[in-house]
Amino acid sequence: MGETTVTIEKMITALLDERKFATLRDVLDTMAPADIAALLDDMPHERMPLLFRLLSKELAAEAFVEMDADLQESLIRGFSDSELKEVVDELYVDDAVDIIEEMPANVVKRILRQADPDMRKMINEILKYPDDSAGSIMTMEYVSFKPDLKVSEAIKNIRRSGVDKETVYTCYVTEKDRRLIGIVTVRSLLMADDDALISDIMEENVISVYTTDDREDVANNFAKYDFLALPVVDRENRLVGIVTVDDAIDVIREEATEDIEKMAAITPTDKPYLKTSAFELWKARIPWLLLLMLSSTFTGIIITHFENALAATSVLAAYIPMLMGTGGNSGSQASVAVIRGLSLDEIEFSDIFRVLWKEIRVSVMSGVTLAAANFIKLITFDRVGAAVALVVSLALAVTVFTAKLVGCSLPILSKKIGFDPAVMASPFITTIVDAISLLIYFTFASALL
Amino acid sequence: MGETTVTIEKMITALLDERKFATLRDVLDTMAPADIAALLDDMPHERMPLLFRLLSKELAAEAFVEMDADLQESLIRGFSDSELKEVVDELYVDDAVDIIEEMPANVVKRILRQADPDMRKMINEILKYPDDSAGSIMTMEYVSFKPDLKVSEAIKNIRRSGVDKETVYTCYVTEKDRRLIGIVTVRSLLMADDDALISDIMEENVISVYTTDDREDVANNFAKYDFLALPVVDRENRLVGIVTVDDAIDVIREEATEDIEKMAAITPTDKPYLKTSAFELWKARIPWLLLLMLSSTFTGIIITHFENALAATSVLAAYIPMLMGTGGNSGSQASVAVIRGLSLDEIEFSDIFRVLWKEIRVSVMSGVTLAAANFIKLITFDRVGAAVALVVSLALAVTVFTAKLVGCSLPILSKKIGFDPAVMASPFITTIVDAISLLIYFTFASALL
Repeated sequence: MGETTVTIEKMITALLDERKFATLRDVLDTMAPADIAALLDDMPHERMPLLFRLLSKELAAEAFVEMDADLQESLIRGFSDSELKEVVDELYVDDAVDIIEEMPANVVKRILRQADPDMRKMINEILKYPDDSAGSIMTMEYVSFKPDLKVSEAIKNIRRSGVDKETVYTCYVTEKDRRLIGIVTVRSLLMADDDALISDIMEENVISVYTTDDREDVANNFAKYDFLALPVVDRENRLVGIVTVDDAIDVIREEATEDIEKMAAITPTDKPYLKTSAFELWKARIPWLLLLMLSSTFTGIIITHFENALAATSVLAAYIPMLMGTGGNSGSQASVAVIRGLSLDEIEFSDIFRVLWKEIRVSVMSGVTLAAANFIKLITFDRVGAAVALVVSLALAVTVFTAKLVGCSLPILSKKIGFDPAVMASPFITTIVDAISLLIYFTFASALL
Repeated sequence: MGETTVTIEKMITALLDERKFATLRDVLDTMAPADIAALLDDMPHERMPLLFRLLSKELAAEAFVEMDADLQESLIRGFSDSELKEVVDELYVDDAVDIIEEMPANVVKRILRQADPDMRKMINEILKYPDDSAGSIMTMEYVSFKPDLKVSEAIKNIRRSGVDKETVYTCYVTEKDRRLIGIVTVRSLLMADDDALISDIMEENVISVYTTDDREDVANNFAKYDFLALPVVDRENRLVGIVTVDDAIDVIREEATEDIEKMAAITPTDKPYLKTSAFELWKARIPWLLLLMLSSTFTGIIITHFENALAATSVLAAYIPMLMGTGGNSGSQASVAVIRGLSLDEIEFSDIFRVLWKEIRVSVMSGVTLAAANFIKLITFDRVGAAVALVVSLALAVTVFTAKLVGCSLPILSKKIGFDPAVMASPFITTIVDAISLLIYFTFASALL
């Protein structure tokens, strides 16, 4: 993972060899949970449990949350029931759910058995929500107040119960039926008079998400409104949980990675590259390679169909890669820009004509530039005849134009009909554009040569 | 931008037409700053200043920060000096810098003239740091304590001064010379005894970044450690500013967009797609298209060189697109996975042999699968001779193998020598792989046919 552990690792190994456990405990105590997780990951597996047991209870749980799933699983398998309970007791519900989602069934059962009944209930509640929904990334450990509470009481309340809440900085104001009516920040509590009522200082225009909303929308809300936490409500506006900013950051990174993987024709996985086995990588990539390989049969058919034209003017074959390559690149430039805009909520379906009009202008400018440059190169360097240069350059301009229009509209249309726009990206569009560009090329060639 | 303003817009327009300003003020007061910014963006330009003046001072500044640069500029140009001063006075320093960076020189001068001397000094300080550095995204408006302060005094201090600080939730403990020695969170302050000293409860193992660190590293720190703010220090460990989590989220999204754009051979811009003019889009795309078009000259040369082989076995030409396409797709799968790993700090240079070994295994598995599928297809559907099927399938397997190895190693190597790995992605690697795959193809064909 990070670079921080490179020299620390040797020091820790030496201390372990000398069995200086008190010193080790002090050393580990100075480290951040994420760094401890990275350190354990780099240590030989048999030393891991010993090191983990040296951590203070709280730090152990925090480091545990930061570990990769395989490390967590191997630790849990080594835990006694009481050790497992100690870790589980310290976990926040949303972190517990993240861990459980990666574990095999028998480990999940053991974890749930060690969780206290309240926690078990909350975990099962969250597990009900579909993956990728707001419900699946929320936690129930938030602070809530009644509107008629005094500010001084609210602060006392936080001081008493805050230690078990994932965030205390945004608190929620609910009525008797758990209906969400406002939020107060700790900042506003600290700035307010002790005798003021929560209802006096609360912000009543609350932005919230539904449990079933896509987690990408949740993440976009964090980016738009600069929140530290976002309330999650059911259809009756009853508060069921909150999403905190650290989880939103994870979602933003994961969604970007997923988009990038899909654009490169890879089935997305949650695992970091180095943690993914060669077989898993093969599995995520091969279906797309096969599909795309078969789809390029069309381009083959087109070339075979125009075999006579090729045989007559054999120089034409030399420009096929340039034509297909430039078409593919032009198309993915447009598609990738639009796909990213869709993901960031900057482009909607209603913008389709603005997008098309923009790409029409860009593609005319690009097509003319490229065709001109290409024409000059063909005449001066390649020394082909003017007719061939004209055919290649004309085909290039039309190809670029078509590629950009296909590239920009396909993602928007596929989102509209419920498909993932990122899957429509480079490779698919390239295949379509390849076929079209060859058709254009040979049509021009047959007509003009 | 969002969908929220679609119906609101009509209502606001109606209220404006009826000159119901008091009602308008109440309506706008219920809206979040980002939504007001989106609303103003959708309104006819001449109505914008009037609406903006209806906002309360604080809300006006908050909405102003959320606007696109062109909207900000047009508002500033309409402001009187005192109106401008009112907005500038409410801005946090980092937001002011963000705005200034997008404005033309004469507008910048006006803004700086209206800022009070302290603010002007801080703005100029931040503007000194290079774009993309931690210094350029920090703010100086943080809360700091001396270590011998009592908890009760610290809380009083926050209540008094907090309103001008961007975040009060993480406070910094410094010695006389501004050297950073610890952090305290408001949560720990609230949980502590009133009489405890800051030095008793502060966290001494502080993770900080240097002013010159890359902002991408800053963002990765937020993701790794789940911070709400991160201190920025100079080489002598003196605290010079903090970066808050909302800015980190913007960086994470922008960096992901930049990576995606570079992978698609687009020069990155900060502007959202719909705000970018056709000419700007053309400028960001055409150099790469030209470069890649010229680089595909190599593939043309190779094809011309083997013209005789092609003429002798004209069926070979039909499989060129399939071969180049599959090679390109295989290569970008590997390169994109590695580039994303590098961006997320999951892969380092020292991992190069692990990456190579992984891709060797993946590419052997993929090459065999694809070659086998291809062989069967060629024999049964295309009904070509066994010799041709063998040549095509063998070339395919070797191409996939080469493509994956080039794809995974090039990004790591280019990062090592200081180039941007994302620029090395799909199109460049595709061009290299195209040339190699054709060479392999024709070599096999010449040898076996």
